[in-house]
Amino acid sequence: MKPARSGCPINAAVEAFGDSWSLLVLRDVMFGNRLYFRELLAGSEEGIASNVLADRLKRLVAAGLLTRDGAGPGRRAAYKLTEASIQLVPVFAQLGDWGIRHRPTTERLRMRAELLTAGGSELWTDLMTELRVIHLDAPALQFERQSVIQRLANVYAAASE
Amino acid sequence: MKPARSGCPINAAVEAFGDSWSLLVLRDVMFGNRLYFRELLAGSEEGIASNVLADRLKRLVAAGLLTRDGAGPGRRAAYKLTEASIQLVPVFAQLGDWGIRHRPTTERLRMRAELLTAGGSELWTDLMTELRVIHLDAPALQFERQSVIQRLANVYAAASE
Repeated sequence: MKPARSGCPINAAVEAFGDSWSLLVLRDVMFGNRLYFRELLAGSEEGIASNVLADRLKRLVAAGLLTRDGAGPGRRAAYKLTEASIQLVPVFAQLGDWGIRHRPTTERLRMRAELLTAGGSELWTDLMTELRVIHLDAPALQFERQSVIQRLANVYAAASE
Repeated sequence: MKPARSGCPINAAVEAFGDSWSLLVLRDVMFGNRLYFRELLAGSEEGIASNVLADRLKRLVAAGLLTRDGAGPGRRAAYKLTEASIQLVPVFAQLGDWGIRHRPTTERLRMRAELLTAGGSELWTDLMTELRVIHLDAPALQFERQSVIQRLANVYAAASE
């Protein structure tokens, strides 16, 4: 990583993941549960190019926002979130909330952001807990509630029908 | 504006202001109360170049995130926030909070973000109310509390001494 342009926390955050494609890749790992290069490429709503995706994955690993593991003969590498990128949930939730209110969006792609907005910080905390199980191998918990990840997948599937 | 790459609210938000320099310019108008080109150029902690600043101001006006007015013979143009960009306060607050926790930052530039984090959503709402007075000519209110903008300026001045 190059030295930061300034020690401002907002600048530091933007330098870490503020490139648009990096942010969209993180979004797809986080909310789309896509852990593999091919899934990320084929599923990209914005049509990310294969060389751009490869470059951004490398950068995100270097920045400590993704880990890459499991690659081997006949095995694809899996990209997973780190504690730092899991803590971006509130940033994504606020970005999505702003996008819904101030930009034209499509219903199919809006449903998950609406769920995040409606659930507020309590739901974001629950989501981060679940992401730690998937991405950081945190011990699985018995949830008394329906999984947030499952709810996000459900509203997306319903809207895509 | 080009058509959006997708109708996803996060993508739509990122396309509107996700370019790093655009975001830093908005930050300086919002938290530094810098309304003029020269102030924005001279005060930039990240050393924005004059042509980049001019380009991003134009883009932000086109995107409905800044207004430009008051220019005339012997009068400089003032850039002001719009309702849409004032509603970015929670996004900036979450970005700053993440930056403090996960990136190296300098104390002088960290103080304002710490105040925003500590104050939570109640303080963000108060700040938005005050920004509407400055930027949207909303009627000034008699605050029973100390102005958030003044508190931000105070902690920054104290840290800069």
